Amino acid sequence: MPKRILRVNMTNLESQFEDLPADYAALGGRGMTSTIVAKEVPPTCNPLGIHNKLVFAPGIVTGTKAPTSGRLSVGGKSPLTGGIKEANAGTPFAQMLARMRIGAIIIEGKHAGDDYYLLKITMDGTEFIKANKWVGKGLYGVYKDLFKEYGDKVGISGVGIAAELLGAMSGVCFNDPEGLPSRYAGRGGLGAVMASKGLKFIIVDDTGAPGVEIANEEVFSQGIKKLRDALTSHDVTKPGGALNSYGTAVLVNIINEAGGLPQRNFSSGQDEGAEKVSGEAKAEEIKKRGGTRPHFCNPGCIIQCSEVWVKPNGKDPVGVLEYESVWALGPNCAIYNLDDIGELNRACNDLGTDTIEAGDTIAVAMEGGLIEFGDGKGAIKLMDEIRKKTPIGKILAQGTEITGKVFGVTRIPTVKGQGLPAYDPRAIKGIGVTFATTPMGADHTAGYAIAPEILGVGGKLDPLSPEKAEVSRNLQFATAAIDASGYCLFIAFAILDIPEGLQGVVESLSGVLGANLTVDDVGPIGKSIIDTELEFNKKAGFTKIHDRLPEFFLEEKLPPHNTVFDVPDDDLDSVF
Amino acid sequence: MPKRILRVNMTNLESQFEDLPADYAALGGRGMTSTIVAKEVPPTCNPLGIHNKLVFAPGIVTGTKAPTSGRLSVGGKSPLTGGIKEANAGTPFAQMLARMRIGAIIIEGKHAGDDYYLLKITMDGTEFIKANKWVGKGLYGVYKDLFKEYGDKVGISGVGIAAELLGAMSGVCFNDPEGLPSRYAGRGGLGAVMASKGLKFIIVDDTGAPGVEIANEEVFSQGIKKLRDALTSHDVTKPGGALNSYGTAVLVNIINEAGGLPQRNFSSGQDEGAEKVSGEAKAEEIKKRGGTRPHFCNPGCIIQCSEVWVKPNGKDPVGVLEYESVWALGPNCAIYNLDDIGELNRACNDLGTDTIEAGDTIAVAMEGGLIEFGDGKGAIKLMDEIRKKTPIGKILAQGTEITGKVFGVTRIPTVKGQGLPAYDPRAIKGIGVTFATTPMGADHTAGYAIAPEILGVGGKLDPLSPEKAEVSRNLQFATAAIDASGYCLFIAFAILDIPEGLQGVVESLSGVLGANLTVDDVGPIGKSIIDTELEFNKKAGFTKIHDRLPEFFLEEKLPPHNTVFDVPDDDLDSVF
Repeated sequence: MPKRILRVNMTNLESQFEDLPADYAALGGRGMTSTIVAKEVPPTCNPLGIHNKLVFAPGIVTGTKAPTSGRLSVGGKSPLTGGIKEANAGTPFAQMLARMRIGAIIIEGKHAGDDYYLLKITMDGTEFIKANKWVGKGLYGVYKDLFKEYGDKVGISGVGIAAELLGAMSGVCFNDPEGLPSRYAGRGGLGAVMASKGLKFIIVDDTGAPGVEIANEEVFSQGIKKLRDALTSHDVTKPGGALNSYGTAVLVNIINEAGGLPQRNFSSGQDEGAEKVSGEAKAEEIKKRGGTRPHFCNPGCIIQCSEVWVKPNGKDPVGVLEYESVWALGPNCAIYNLDDIGELNRACNDLGTDTIEAGDTIAVAMEGGLIEFGDGKGAIKLMDEIRKKTPIGKILAQGTEITGKVFGVTRIPTVKGQGLPAYDPRAIKGIGVTFATTPMGADHTAGYAIAPEILGVGGKLDPLSPEKAEVSRNLQFATAAIDASGYCLFIAFAILDIPEGLQGVVESLSGVLGANLTVDDVGPIGKSIIDTELEFNKKAGFTKIHDRLPEFFLEEKLPPHNTVFDVPDDDLDSVF
Repeated sequence: MPKRILRVNMTNLESQFEDLPADYAALGGRGMTSTIVAKEVPPTCNPLGIHNKLVFAPGIVTGTKAPTSGRLSVGGKSPLTGGIKEANAGTPFAQMLARMRIGAIIIEGKHAGDDYYLLKITMDGTEFIKANKWVGKGLYGVYKDLFKEYGDKVGISGVGIAAELLGAMSGVCFNDPEGLPSRYAGRGGLGAVMASKGLKFIIVDDTGAPGVEIANEEVFSQGIKKLRDALTSHDVTKPGGALNSYGTAVLVNIINEAGGLPQRNFSSGQDEGAEKVSGEAKAEEIKKRGGTRPHFCNPGCIIQCSEVWVKPNGKDPVGVLEYESVWALGPNCAIYNLDDIGELNRACNDLGTDTIEAGDTIAVAMEGGLIEFGDGKGAIKLMDEIRKKTPIGKILAQGTEITGKVFGVTRIPTVKGQGLPAYDPRAIKGIGVTFATTPMGADHTAGYAIAPEILGVGGKLDPLSPEKAEVSRNLQFATAAIDASGYCLFIAFAILDIPEGLQGVVESLSGVLGANLTVDDVGPIGKSIIDTELEFNKKAGFTKIHDRLPEFFLEEKLPPHNTVFDVPDDDLDSVF
């Protein structure tokens, strides 16, 4: 059975399996979603209209025994940025699609009327089922019910209340291995795109799936062994290493120490309160409470940076509290209380919102006077406004930029309409170059210059030096290639430092594809994906002028370094 | 005394008179504001930040005896569109500035802290006075108090509660000859720019002003006589003619008859209810109630299309209910009751909002389910949310596009973020070309193709024909020149049909400037202004892609003609 595309037309509730076009054969993940979006979606279309499409695509090695590779990309035109978007999640759902030899699901059209649907995909075919009974409900309860109804072996993708509001901060939610609605292709409002089409859930059941076809088992096996060796030996990725022990939130202390952890809506880069919400503090608390740490977001992960955060009584599992989430819902709102942050993260998962956008949004609402900075309980109540679909909730659901404007805030930390992640570009300039120039809108995962700037991985650069165009460009190319591979981006820590690991990744891809890739192919593969995305954005009306940080980053000095973002515009323009 | 520029720095509350640069000598109105904005405002700046500037400039013949010439332009970078903006008003304030030989007021900087100021300008100099006591108050009461405090001969410019919210639908308000806050440079959110700087009011007192310098009195007098003859003989502009008898709202029946009067958020082009809010019905009602009709918005106007609308008991004057206002707050919201429309218009004036943007905003809020279509009393209550500065009020104050997004509406009638005026581009395509291509965002005054398409003025074109690039271009050039002259745009009706009138306009400009302009210079003058504006917008990040109407105009057929907007993109791109 060859790899297939599942095309789903929501206008008339029909679907069909199509042969994967020959020129898509070597594509996966972001390479697949961006290629399809660029080919099939008119760049000027209304992102919430009938012409936008939503594409799901597992990576090239997803579903195989390759370690840490259970990733999937979701793509479309973003209602948040107005440009092309790829959002990425690690979830068993990804592996199931891959094993069913579904290279991509393309959701198109738009169902007229108010009904929502659930799409069930098995090896026997597809089925559309009315999903109205789940509308307006939190996803923790809904996912529990869905697993009860469809069996606990299925994979679930869904959208929540924020997406029902067509909120630009709504993400596409996937289950973690415990069935929690905690793995998100969060950024860019793709949840609203799914909801706009009348699609509420996709359930996959891979019973009887043939598994991923591997063209050359020998090369593949040899590759994944090399990668496994690299992952298990690098300090960041190995068992008992930084990510495994403390999760991504190990960065809280590190970035705070570097003076680049944004506090109070990007008005300071450091605060002693940050330690209270550090990865170390969180890991200890999880242990005390009886949560789970470490934990994997998808089977076969070696790094296992995930966790299950729980209430003080050990009950009501939330899922992982990632670094970005802890920061966004914590220090950025001057909230330094893990329980408040945990409940905010629960609310985001339950309502179907991106945690970064939610945290940025709450922070600008605080700056606009809606509640006080530091008011954790107030922030939780704000999230409840989304649940109740009140006017305040509808504002917040639209994300940082609209919320900032509505509440009269002029310090709005967005690029291309998307809220900035957890690194202040005035203190760590390479990541600022990535925020400004990636076709995705402000996105740290697009070219993680933090690695060389702060972590000393893949080189060692002065974070305060503005000469970062080249490193950002190279990282953006490499990242796009990894986003296509199906590997988790976190393998980069190991393979940037251990050449054999990178070699292993390339061999594993060659093994699956029956290709003869070399390490030198990685950059060009990534570049070709980004070229496709840039071309889409250009046709959507983007220019170099949109590759800029907001004015206040260039003019307000950030304590403690008291620096501004001083990368020249020409340098930004030289990235692509 | 030569013509001067008054430069006002709100950062340190200082101002100075500067000589008018030699290359500004022939500029006025829109020519002056757009030139200064393009020269002094960084195109990528935050419109509500310290780098934006707000420029006031009377036209070239404003303040002279030239008929119908009391116009003034306000310019800056628009927080609504993100591009350059010129908004235009007819008001005695314009004539006073001109007579004081103030070619432009440039407001720059930004006052730190929460204080608001009033700037008083006399022939002796300027004075900054704290204006905090007027904050949060309606402009009808405030203007009454200001005239009491500063004398009833002064001119007032001010911003209201909507601007205090930094609302993108806030306009800059001027007094009419009765002292009512009813003359607006309404579009594009320039009120928010003024408020963002800490400036609440400008009071001008022209006592002792030398008057406008006229280089050649003979040519000037001969010119204005020709124009006066044209205005008093053309059916549209003459005393007892269409505008004089019924005001601009004479268009309600005409455009409804043509099937192009948008109803219920641009979902139909015709409704029999429209007659109830027609210019004819309104004029009769004003007569019955003891309002004023006709009336002039500035002394010396021959056309006198204005009026004073009052409550049924003849009290509580509102000022004029223009065609655009009646439509926006009326049929576009399915409101067919002149008293409700009058109270909505009063609320707009009192709160300092553009009536077109307010009406478009209420209509999308209705489509989003906030209140029902046709609920006039509900709409009045919504405006009160702005007054109370509630979250709903703050949403609405941001205008059509943000309100639409917040309430989950995908049919949002905007171009470059600005709400469409009272003509459906599916039924009248030339005006649609203007909406799409003008650097101002959707704006009927930028190139009023309705004249040849519907009124048979300046030619006769089929409104349903998509071949309109040329007529829109020519009208946009001519309009920019008129907007620079200080003449009201409505002289165009006469001078498009009567060559002697156009000759008179050119002679009057030559007379003031001591120049030898010919009719052939008009187009190039307008073109040079628009070129300046297009260049600013390009540097601000605009491309041809932004010269498009929203998707639904291209796909949803508009009753009764059941046509879509089918002007090819290439035609739109050929306009400039």
